[in-house]
Amino acid sequence: MSTDASLSGVWVPTLTPLRADLSIDAERFVAHARWLLENGCHGVVLFGTTGEATSFATDERSAMLDRAIDAGLPAERLVVGTGCCALPDTVRLTRHALERGCFAVLALPPFYYKGVSDEGLFRSYAEIIERIGDTRLQLYLYHFPRLSGVPITAGLIERLLRAYPDTVKGIKDSSGDWTSTSGFIERFPGLAVLPGAETLLRDALQAGGTGCITAMANANPAAIRKTYDACCSDDPEAPALQSSITQIREIIEVHSLVGALKALISHYRQDPDWRRVRPPLLSFPEAGIAELAASLEAGGYVFPGSAPPSE
Amino acid sequence: MSTDASLSGVWVPTLTPLRADLSIDAERFVAHARWLLENGCHGVVLFGTTGEATSFATDERSAMLDRAIDAGLPAERLVVGTGCCALPDTVRLTRHALERGCFAVLALPPFYYKGVSDEGLFRSYAEIIERIGDTRLQLYLYHFPRLSGVPITAGLIERLLRAYPDTVKGIKDSSGDWTSTSGFIERFPGLAVLPGAETLLRDALQAGGTGCITAMANANPAAIRKTYDACCSDDPEAPALQSSITQIREIIEVHSLVGALKALISHYRQDPDWRRVRPPLLSFPEAGIAELAASLEAGGYVFPGSAPPSE
Repeated sequence: MSTDASLSGVWVPTLTPLRADLSIDAERFVAHARWLLENGCHGVVLFGTTGEATSFATDERSAMLDRAIDAGLPAERLVVGTGCCALPDTVRLTRHALERGCFAVLALPPFYYKGVSDEGLFRSYAEIIERIGDTRLQLYLYHFPRLSGVPITAGLIERLLRAYPDTVKGIKDSSGDWTSTSGFIERFPGLAVLPGAETLLRDALQAGGTGCITAMANANPAAIRKTYDACCSDDPEAPALQSSITQIREIIEVHSLVGALKALISHYRQDPDWRRVRPPLLSFPEAGIAELAASLEAGGYVFPGSAPPSE
Repeated sequence: MSTDASLSGVWVPTLTPLRADLSIDAERFVAHARWLLENGCHGVVLFGTTGEATSFATDERSAMLDRAIDAGLPAERLVVGTGCCALPDTVRLTRHALERGCFAVLALPPFYYKGVSDEGLFRSYAEIIERIGDTRLQLYLYHFPRLSGVPITAGLIERLLRAYPDTVKGIKDSSGDWTSTSGFIERFPGLAVLPGAETLLRDALQAGGTGCITAMANANPAAIRKTYDACCSDDPEAPALQSSITQIREIIEVHSLVGALKALISHYRQDPDWRRVRPPLLSFPEAGIAELAASLEAGGYVFPGSAPPSE
C-alpha cells in the first residue's frame, strides 16, 4: 500500500453558487473553482458538505461535473463527492466521475439509518466498489459523525483496507477531534488522513497526515496554502502561520459555515448573488456581512487579491 | 380546517422486498401491499423508513409506484413517502405521486444537515408546496428525530399551518414519545396526528389522534386493526387488545425492525427471498428466525391466516 497517488495538500470543498431559482450557477461555480486552484489550493472537492451536496439531485451533480470538466478544470485536481443514501445514486455518481476522468471520490456512508453496524457499512462500500469494478477508483471515506450520524470506525476501515487495499486510499476526518484524526494516522500508516479543518493542519502533517480538506479554503486559500508549505519545509514561521489561520477560522466558525462563507465571497466580489443557499440552510443576513468581514480583518484576514477568472 | 379527508385508522409503511441483485421485487411488493389491505390495514405507506425509502433512488421509487397503481392498488389507500435531502428529488417524487392519483404524501425533512432552523425547514417545505402548486396535495410531516436527526417542532408546524392550511394535513410522530404525540394533538386540533407505533394507538385515539402508521402492521395487521376498531367503538376489550399488540411489539422491537419483520414474513410464507435488505441494513440471521417466531407466538402472536394474493 502506498500513498504516492493519494491526496495531499490543501483541498477545498467548493461552495456551490446558485441562481435565483436555486439551480446551480455553473458559470460562477467554474470561475470560483478555478480561482481556488489559482490561489493556493492543490485541488477542489466538488459536492462535499460545504458544497451542499446532499441538497442536489444526482442529475444536477453530474451535469455540474460535466460542465466543470468541459470548461477545462483539470480532472486530476478534482475529487468528486458521491456518497448518497441510496446505493444506485452513489454508484451512478461514482461511475460518472470515473467516466469524466476523476478517479478520486469522497463518499459519505448512507446516512439515514443510524446505529447501523460496521458489517452493514462494509457491505455498502463493498457493493459500490464491486459495482463500479474499476481499478482506477480511489475511494476516500468521509467521516463526519456530527452531520451524517454514521461514524466511520477504525474497525470498518480495517475491513475495507483488507478487502480493497488498492481502492480505499484515505479518509476525510471532519470529526474535529484530534484524538480521532491522530488515531487514524497512527493505526493506518498507508492511508491518506486529512482532517476536515485547517485548525488541525500542522498537527496532522507532523503526525503523518497528508494535508486537509477544509471549507475555509473557499475564502482563505492562500494563507492556508502558505501554512501548509511552511509546515512541509519546517519553516520556523509555521507555528505563527497556523495560529493565524486558526484564529481566522474561529471568528467565522461561530456562524453557520456555508452561509457565512458564501456571504464573504459575495462581499469581497461585490456579488450579492453569491449569498444564496438551498433550504434547509439559510443565507447569511445581509446586514451582518460587513461586520463579519470587519471582524475577520481585525483578526488578520485578507481576502486573496486576484479576481476570479471568467469561465 | 377539517380532518374529514385526513388519514385515519391503521396505516402500514410497507416493507420493500428485494430480488437477489437488491432491486425491488415489484411482484412481491404488490402482493404484500394487497395482503395488508385485505388483512386489516386501512392503507399502505409506500417508502417510509420501514420500506427502506432512502436506500432507493428516485427512479426506483417512481417505477415501483407506477407498478403498484398499474397493478390496481387503490390510489386512495396509498400514501407515498417523498421526503429526500434534495429539494428536486422531493418535488419529483411528490409530483409523480399526484400524477398517479396519490394525493397524500409523507415527507421527511431534508435530513443531512443537523441543527438547522425552523425557518430553513419552513422554506424547504414551502418550496416543495409552491413548486408542486396543486391544491390536491395533502402533505403529512414525518417526525422521526432518532433517524432523521431533524425534529419537526410545534413552531414549524404552526408556521406551515398558517401558510398552507389546506395542504398540511397531518403528522406521523415516530418519536415514540407520548409527550410529543399528545402535545401535537393538543396544540393542533385540526391536524391528523398518528403515532409511528401501535403501542400508542389507544392513547392516541383517546386523546384525539386519528390512528397510527406502524411498521409492525406488516406482520400483525389484523390484531392492530381489531384493536383500532375496539378503541373506536369503546369496546371493553380494547385495553386487553392494546396490551396484547404492545406486548408482541416489545418482543420483536429488541431487534432491528426492518430485518426482523422481513424475516418474519419469510418465515410464515416460507419464502427466504423475503429476508433481503439493502445495505447498510442487514438481513436477520436465518438461524434465529424460528426462535423469534416462537417467542412471538408464546406472547400470543398469530400470523394472519390468508395467503398473499398473487399480483
